[in-house]
Amino acid sequence: MQLLKERILAEGQVIGNDILKVDRFLNHQIDVSFLNSIGQEFFQRFKDERVTKILTVEASGIAIACITAQYFKVPVVFAKKGQASNIEQQVYTSEVYSFTRNATYKIMVAQSYLDAGDRVLIIDDFLANGRAVLGLMDIIRQAGANPVGVGIVIEKGFQEGGALVRKSGANLQSLAIIETMKKGQIVFR
Amino acid sequence: MQLLKERILAEGQVIGNDILKVDRFLNHQIDVSFLNSIGQEFFQRFKDERVTKILTVEASGIAIACITAQYFKVPVVFAKKGQASNIEQQVYTSEVYSFTRNATYKIMVAQSYLDAGDRVLIIDDFLANGRAVLGLMDIIRQAGANPVGVGIVIEKGFQEGGALVRKSGANLQSLAIIETMKKGQIVFR
Repeated sequence: MQLLKERILAEGQVIGNDILKVDRFLNHQIDVSFLNSIGQEFFQRFKDERVTKILTVEASGIAIACITAQYFKVPVVFAKKGQASNIEQQVYTSEVYSFTRNATYKIMVAQSYLDAGDRVLIIDDFLANGRAVLGLMDIIRQAGANPVGVGIVIEKGFQEGGALVRKSGANLQSLAIIETMKKGQIVFR
Repeated sequence: MQLLKERILAEGQVIGNDILKVDRFLNHQIDVSFLNSIGQEFFQRFKDERVTKILTVEASGIAIACITAQYFKVPVVFAKKGQASNIEQQVYTSEVYSFTRNATYKIMVAQSYLDAGDRVLIIDDFLANGRAVLGLMDIIRQAGANPVGVGIVIEKGFQEGGALVRKSGANLQSLAIIETMKKGQIVFR
């Protein structure tokens, strides 16, 4: 997606060789009008999948998932992290290893909000090592639902998530794939 | 807002005398189409305030803030909780006491995303003890910006947040105010 790549080049901040901050329009300040372009692009790519639900994980996936959901006219469900005190008794859970924090955390979705008949589109902001997406796919499988696609705004092509998710057979669509960003220089695939 | 009250009565779950779960449409599963009605209502109530930015706090405020922002055509900024590793160096911070967890946590906003000229509308899902909203107002003041309103979906009228926020002089608009919910019976103000 050309508009996204331009935005990343203009406003993204590269830290070291593998951290990209897009806090100016996606992860802290949110340019909702730009998110609508992203939502439309996801709709173009997945509109024939008869999506019934969009699944993401808190917190930074929520904005993109909600704006995108308007085009599909379906509800969003976001997986909660950790031990929520207020959550439903009956939940699907999966363990996600975070390379950033070198720790495993739990994600969960109340069983009431994923049905066996659901055709689920996973939406998230970043794909790096892919463990969060694999955790969401695990939860979809537990519900007996059908994961019909994975829509990612920015894939870090130099980390293994993309390969892992594609290998799982998922229809992965990343709107921008970064091949490398050494010395602050972003190169797209 | 009549539609919201009906939805709370139909789908809210009361736990004990003071916990209301609206996970079916607001806090876990998100009915984005319904959120558009809420966003329109906020727009009606604050459209003359010349809002330049919407401020909320992760995670459950993000969805409402983003959908609402579409009507105002302004960006959203969400305050981050805790010690984010990836955040800007220069941040405004405030401490928020959580009665639910009996602990204090920090919220922060990168200084780049709030300007002295900003007219900021705070949006959040719940108002109970009000500490999160007061923390956001503190951050707006630190930035020298102008807090022009506070839009809340559900106010727990039996807790002190509403009184505290109104006493601060803020233009607080709650779309539903719950007077009591003893014995599972929700009574609106």
